[in-house]
Amino acid sequence: MKPVFVINGPNLNMLGLREPDVYGHETLAGLEERCRTKAKALGLDISFRQSNLEGEIVTWIQEARSAASGLVLNAGAYTHTSVAIHDALRIAELPLIEVHLTNIYKREPFRHHSYVSSVANGVLCGFGGHGYELALDAIHRILTVKKG
Amino acid sequence: MKPVFVINGPNLNMLGLREPDVYGHETLAGLEERCRTKAKALGLDISFRQSNLEGEIVTWIQEARSAASGLVLNAGAYTHTSVAIHDALRIAELPLIEVHLTNIYKREPFRHHSYVSSVANGVLCGFGGHGYELALDAIHRILTVKKG
Amino acid sequence: MKPVFVINGPNLNMLGLREPDVYGHETLAGLEERCRTKAKALGLDISFRQSNLEGEIVTWIQEARSAASGLVLNAGAYTHTSVAIHDALRIAELPLIEVHLTNIYKREPFRHHSYVSSVANGVLCGFGGHGYELALDAIHRILTVKKG
Amino acid sequence: MKPVFVINGPNLNMLGLREPDVYGHETLAGLEERCRTKAKALGLDISFRQSNLEGEIVTWIQEARSAASGLVLNAGAYTHTSVAIHDALRIAELPLIEVHLTNIYKREPFRHHSYVSSVANGVLCGFGGHGYELALDAIHRILTVKKG
Amino acid sequence: MKPVFVINGPNLNMLGLREPDVYGHETLAGLEERCRTKAKALGLDISFRQSNLEGEIVTWIQEARSAASGLVLNAGAYTHTSVAIHDALRIAELPLIEVHLTNIYKREPFRHHSYVSSVANGVLCGFGGHGYELALDAIHRILTVKKG
Amino acid sequence: MKPVFVINGPNLNMLGLREPDVYGHETLAGLEERCRTKAKALGLDISFRQSNLEGEIVTWIQEARSAASGLVLNAGAYTHTSVAIHDALRIAELPLIEVHLTNIYKREPFRHHSYVSSVANGVLCGFGGHGYELALDAIHRILTVKKG
Amino acid sequence: MKPVFVINGPNLNMLGLREPDVYGHETLAGLEERCRTKAKALGLDISFRQSNLEGEIVTWIQEARSAASGLVLNAGAYTHTSVAIHDALRIAELPLIEVHLTNIYKREPFRHHSYVSSVANGVLCGFGGHGYELALDAIHRILTVKKG
Amino acid sequence: MKPVFVINGPNLNMLGLREPDVYGHETLAGLEERCRTKAKALGLDISFRQSNLEGEIVTWIQEARSAASGLVLNAGAYTHTSVAIHDALRIAELPLIEVHLTNIYKREPFRHHSYVSSVANGVLCGFGGHGYELALDAIHRILTVKKG
Amino acid sequence: MKPVFVINGPNLNMLGLREPDVYGHETLAGLEERCRTKAKALGLDISFRQSNLEGEIVTWIQEARSAASGLVLNAGAYTHTSVAIHDALRIAELPLIEVHLTNIYKREPFRHHSYVSSVANGVLCGFGGHGYELALDAIHRILTVKKG
Amino acid sequence: MKPVFVINGPNLNMLGLREPDVYGHETLAGLEERCRTKAKALGLDISFRQSNLEGEIVTWIQEARSAASGLVLNAGAYTHTSVAIHDALRIAELPLIEVHLTNIYKREPFRHHSYVSSVANGVLCGFGGHGYELALDAIHRILTVKKG
Amino acid sequence: MKPVFVINGPNLNMLGLREPDVYGHETLAGLEERCRTKAKALGLDISFRQSNLEGEIVTWIQEARSAASGLVLNAGAYTHTSVAIHDALRIAELPLIEVHLTNIYKREPFRHHSYVSSVANGVLCGFGGHGYELALDAIHRILTVKKG
Amino acid sequence: MKPVFVINGPNLNMLGLREPDVYGHETLAGLEERCRTKAKALGLDISFRQSNLEGEIVTWIQEARSAASGLVLNAGAYTHTSVAIHDALRIAELPLIEVHLTNIYKREPFRHHSYVSSVANGVLCGFGGHGYELALDAIHRILTVKKG
Repeated sequence: MKPVFVINGPNLNMLGLREPDVYGHETLAGLEERCRTKAKALGLDISFRQSNLEGEIVTWIQEARSAASGLVLNAGAYTHTSVAIHDALRIAELPLIEVHLTNIYKREPFRHHSYVSSVANGVLCGFGGHGYELALDAIHRILTVKKG
Repeated sequence: MKPVFVINGPNLNMLGLREPDVYGHETLAGLEERCRTKAKALGLDISFRQSNLEGEIVTWIQEARSAASGLVLNAGAYTHTSVAIHDALRIAELPLIEVHLTNIYKREPFRHHSYVSSVANGVLCGFGGHGYELALDAIHRILTVKKG
Repeated sequence: MKPVFVINGPNLNMLGLREPDVYGHETLAGLEERCRTKAKALGLDISFRQSNLEGEIVTWIQEARSAASGLVLNAGAYTHTSVAIHDALRIAELPLIEVHLTNIYKREPFRHHSYVSSVANGVLCGFGGHGYELALDAIHRILTVKKG
Repeated sequence: MKPVFVINGPNLNMLGLREPDVYGHETLAGLEERCRTKAKALGLDISFRQSNLEGEIVTWIQEARSAASGLVLNAGAYTHTSVAIHDALRIAELPLIEVHLTNIYKREPFRHHSYVSSVANGVLCGFGGHGYELALDAIHRILTVKKG
Repeated sequence: MKPVFVINGPNLNMLGLREPDVYGHETLAGLEERCRTKAKALGLDISFRQSNLEGEIVTWIQEARSAASGLVLNAGAYTHTSVAIHDALRIAELPLIEVHLTNIYKREPFRHHSYVSSVANGVLCGFGGHGYELALDAIHRILTVKKG
Repeated sequence: MKPVFVINGPNLNMLGLREPDVYGHETLAGLEERCRTKAKALGLDISFRQSNLEGEIVTWIQEARSAASGLVLNAGAYTHTSVAIHDALRIAELPLIEVHLTNIYKREPFRHHSYVSSVANGVLCGFGGHGYELALDAIHRILTVKKG
Repeated sequence: MKPVFVINGPNLNMLGLREPDVYGHETLAGLEERCRTKAKALGLDISFRQSNLEGEIVTWIQEARSAASGLVLNAGAYTHTSVAIHDALRIAELPLIEVHLTNIYKREPFRHHSYVSSVANGVLCGFGGHGYELALDAIHRILTVKKG
Repeated sequence: MKPVFVINGPNLNMLGLREPDVYGHETLAGLEERCRTKAKALGLDISFRQSNLEGEIVTWIQEARSAASGLVLNAGAYTHTSVAIHDALRIAELPLIEVHLTNIYKREPFRHHSYVSSVANGVLCGFGGHGYELALDAIHRILTVKKG
Repeated sequence: MKPVFVINGPNLNMLGLREPDVYGHETLAGLEERCRTKAKALGLDISFRQSNLEGEIVTWIQEARSAASGLVLNAGAYTHTSVAIHDALRIAELPLIEVHLTNIYKREPFRHHSYVSSVANGVLCGFGGHGYELALDAIHRILTVKKG
Repeated sequence: MKPVFVINGPNLNMLGLREPDVYGHETLAGLEERCRTKAKALGLDISFRQSNLEGEIVTWIQEARSAASGLVLNAGAYTHTSVAIHDALRIAELPLIEVHLTNIYKREPFRHHSYVSSVANGVLCGFGGHGYELALDAIHRILTVKKG
Repeated sequence: MKPVFVINGPNLNMLGLREPDVYGHETLAGLEERCRTKAKALGLDISFRQSNLEGEIVTWIQEARSAASGLVLNAGAYTHTSVAIHDALRIAELPLIEVHLTNIYKREPFRHHSYVSSVANGVLCGFGGHGYELALDAIHRILTVKKG
Repeated sequence: MKPVFVINGPNLNMLGLREPDVYGHETLAGLEERCRTKAKALGLDISFRQSNLEGEIVTWIQEARSAASGLVLNAGAYTHTSVAIHDALRIAELPLIEVHLTNIYKREPFRHHSYVSSVANGVLCGFGGHGYELALDAIHRILTVKKG
């Protein structure tokens, strides 16, 4: 089976340094490790990526269209502003789980709207790094049910 | 350990009958069964309930304050209108996971605001019945980390 | 044929006492009598009910799904605030006529939006008690055409 | 007794041709026939009219002031935009029933506001051609009660 | 000198009959008489008109461009809704006084915005029939200063 | 004289436990005691109640119409969402004092609008339990002046 | 007869200096002179005043209640922000004409709302200094009709 | 093949006179000439019309339903206010190109919304008279592809 | 103990004359007398003031910072518009009770927002002159509890 | 003459794959071919580009300032969000035609505002690939008229 | 050269006492001293003032028109509410630097709009007392460039 | 000491060419020179950069976290749209001065909101190139006070 792309948006490379009381002490490398372990347990292959560039994330999602079996996306700040990512996701036509480390509905109003949610299968927020594991669980379930 | 209360709001007793293309064919009894199995696997005890009455849900959340170790809440339509449930949840001071069967952000605008999200630890939507399992996973993680 | 449920929301039990210059002097009992007479003339059976509890009205609409052939609903104040009733009505999948004694569009702005209208076949307001008769006429027409 | 004016606004002359899945197959002539039959049964005389011109409708309502005993008005698209018709209706000081073939509250938001409702005795929508009959019933009731 | 066009919009032909507690008992003929007397005293010629048709008022304003020296306009209800009249007035490039019999700022919010005001030299409201005389005074002053 | 109904809405049964830094340590029983003492001093009889159910509060207010001489109402969260309570209060036609333990205008925006205020004689907020005493003072004054 | 108070608000003392392309070259003294001449012709006495202080204008309007027969008010910038002046005018219960030198509806949106208009008999704007003369004409007419 | 109706709304008969710095010096006759030349080159027949009356434009669009093969519509000011034209266009079910001489998105906010766009195949604005030629090109392409 | 400042805003010097059906017949002098009597009973000293000038009220509140033990403030119309008073109150850091004679939530929407409420301990409105007595009661309670 | 830059924004490289029922089956290469053919016929040279990066599009527009004679821009999703592209276009000071394959006014509300339109000479949408040809026609006309 | 007026609005006389964690411990006298030192270094003369009265600030700005070479203005709370000060500044036609001690964009939304900014040359906020020195630097630069 | 990063956003590389009446004739190189001179005088080291790519600016701010002592940021158009830059700045936890060449509050409404201001120490706008010098002054003061 093609891998699941796990795509991380701007500033997620700063995890561990970034407002630790909000985002915790886990780094992006730790997060990747956690995902690899979980994916292995589920029998999934993953491609784990991060970029600060909106256009690069768009390109990765376009690539996913033919190269991936599903998407786990934490678009970071671009969640709230990027119609380009929204459009790329509609083109991708893949199972998509949106994930956020924090509960964005507890934060500033400009974080309450997501251009990703309206094209996602499911949305997960507020579970910290564990959320990525739950997202892989969910994508695994969708892929399994689909194939079954 | 005290049980986790899994509380379901109005019309969730109609699952299976309710717009099956939106909500699927699983019934509330099926959902309860699924939760019991998952809880058992995690070593959790659950109390599974449903009510059409806003005030009864408020009372159950008040009861949970001393009788439960955590809450999984699908408040259904009251999610969008009930300040009373919001207030009860603030009083409960318990780990709380908000869950919705459907992705509410793909639906009518009046379903995009939740009075539950701002007091929840995490939010999950769009995963159908599987979402309840993920929610129990998450609450288990919170309770374990807490105790640990 | 199954009966038509005629459901009345909060404060309609106060008819006759309630702001008579707005709502007139007819009581709820008078209104029921008027409905029974009209239903008889049309060859319909009715079940006439009133409740102040949002959740009880939700439950009655759920019950109607299998026990009724149609609904005449004056949800009173819950018209403007209840997503739970809206959801129950979508589940019921029955011919539905919304009725209001007064012309709600002549009153305060918070009475101009109805969560019932968007799931009703037809809407009637401003006809006082006569509106219930017109509603029964209309539901009769729908049921007759359906069967015919 | 003076006749009841039944006034139809823009595009209602296209009934039968106009989006039949929304408006049905009945033509304006059929609608007039239906009204004449009903009026006869009620002992009412009617004057049935249609115009695409806002100003002509205003003039007819002004004429109604002295020449009619009541008004049944389906102002079509002008319902949502015409302050001029609203003003004419206030001047007319006649029993007025607003009628729409479709349930306008199920349609685009710009059809949810009516400049007619706030000066009407009663509002009826979503009953197709039958709505005109109900409107004549209602105006008959008002005129009878008035005279009685 | 070319005449001043005094143009009256929809329902102003009903003056005297129209809500007399709001608009007074003077008729449109009385208003015209009052304008003729005042115009004569000022040495102005006037062309006094009324129409219920938005498009006819547009045409008259277009005509005024070459045939009139100034405009006094009470556009009635079209004041609040007509972009077409607004555009015609911009094309006319004539001295323009907007007049309303009543103080529109004391009335419903939908009467608080005027498409005429932003292209008028001056605005007058709340002076009843006397307002037309003041408007002729004002247009006379503008024309005199212009020529002087 | 008929008693004054002192009605408390949802979650007020949790006083003392509920966010003590916001609501203080006094319990509902303590509040009732405080009211009884004050009422006695004023020569008033009271009926002190609490419910989490919107519809039950509606019913109590309906009952008050004939059984009470006045109302002190802390509708809690329903203050901000209940048109049904608003309507019941209009029907009750009794002296009504709205009271809140906290200053709701210092809190979240969704607590700044009250459906009770527009039908109350007076409004009191931010005085903690003492506010109930002031409310009884006020209702006593109104009843005394009325009778005098 | 008591005098008419002609009250001018902030920055009107700068007339002649103030943006002459907007306000013209006439000074406040010139404006006063123009008013005195007009008033004399009408047989009116006037008290002409200007202040930059909102509170002083409030006090003058309070004084007018017993000392004046009518008010001509150009409240300048306070037109758009002062509830205090609005309240004073309601207390004054005098014939009131609101006047502005410029057409405020052609200017910035924050000048389109007036707290004076809703308590004025009539409103005049865009006539420059001549507007004050028209306002005196209008107040004279009101006072004459009143007395007659 | 049936002709293409080229319909022009209010004030377009003033072209050449109307704000030439905005609309240019070409007259409506010149515009018609330009359309005839282009149509001939494309092998199309056209019917070129202009009206200031909203209702007449509605009637022409109704006529087009059976008498035309396509529509080029510059509804002028009615673009922004006419639900009646919107409805007529939905009934017409014809290829429709919306055209504006100026770029309406560079102008006042009230010109930014069009009731025509949501039912048009394509929208063209800001190309002056050339826009009509491009519109005929486009309608020709649609008709050719359709037939092909 | 330092006195309590009782500060009254614009137009409160007109009490008794001001819209008596809204504000009653009591004068400001009567209100002062009522406050003195109540204060005496509570063992408080008061300084009772009124001004029409926003800036003077700001200065008094600044003075209160060192010279007063608490504030009772009826800012009148400045309640709704004065950020300067809001700021002064934050600087004062004194127990503050906001009082209004009328129930401002029953009046025009522009009276529903208060710049005072968000910095007050408690808010009282709709109790007429009695509200000042209740306010003194409340401030006495705060001062006593503080000291106790 | 310098070439015309034809710039395409994010996801346009996915044409043919992207929602074919919305965007059709033509690929970006096909679109380029179509443009080259049309440009040749018009005697224009073109530089055809696509990027997913907002900043790269900004840089290309900056380059166009000295290297191009005109711009045809389909900014895709950045149309709705990019102030940076808006600013670059203002700096470019070149003839600019905005083009969209689909009629954006028929789609989601977030596609109804364009940061490009307010700086474009003309706007074209809903013509599919043919729209690029029309845009080249239009730019050719502007360049020819300019030079002529 | 004429002096630069440094004008301070309401509550700035409380500096040092006012919320020291927000505004710091420097007093207004200290601020004046700091300005005098800086002005001397730049060869400027200053007139340093403070008032709590909106109207007095208006008058000082009017005075500045002829008596000052530039303005440094911290209008305090009037920044957000005073159209009168806005108008006075437009009349003054002087170099104007707006200064705030705190970063108003970090504070309550009602402090985010300034009536001063739209008529200022430059805006400075968040620099505490140092901001006044920067403002004098800036005004010096403007005056020097102007003269040079 | 680590250098101060002076970061410039999109289109600032076009300075001198860009709308010179708005932005002046100074180029980015000139601006850098001006900053170097000022920094030298203050004993600061600077790193002066410009990018059209939002993501590159995010990366530079991330780099600044460990490599810089402070930030001067003119984010250009991204000021108004970039949540990603906002987030990067929160992570950076450095002294930050926001600077704009023009007074953005005098320009289009979409330039009035800044995602930078709410995380900046101070904001400066409207001072042209001089603003960068003032910003360096300010950052120097912060760094000096911090160290002192």
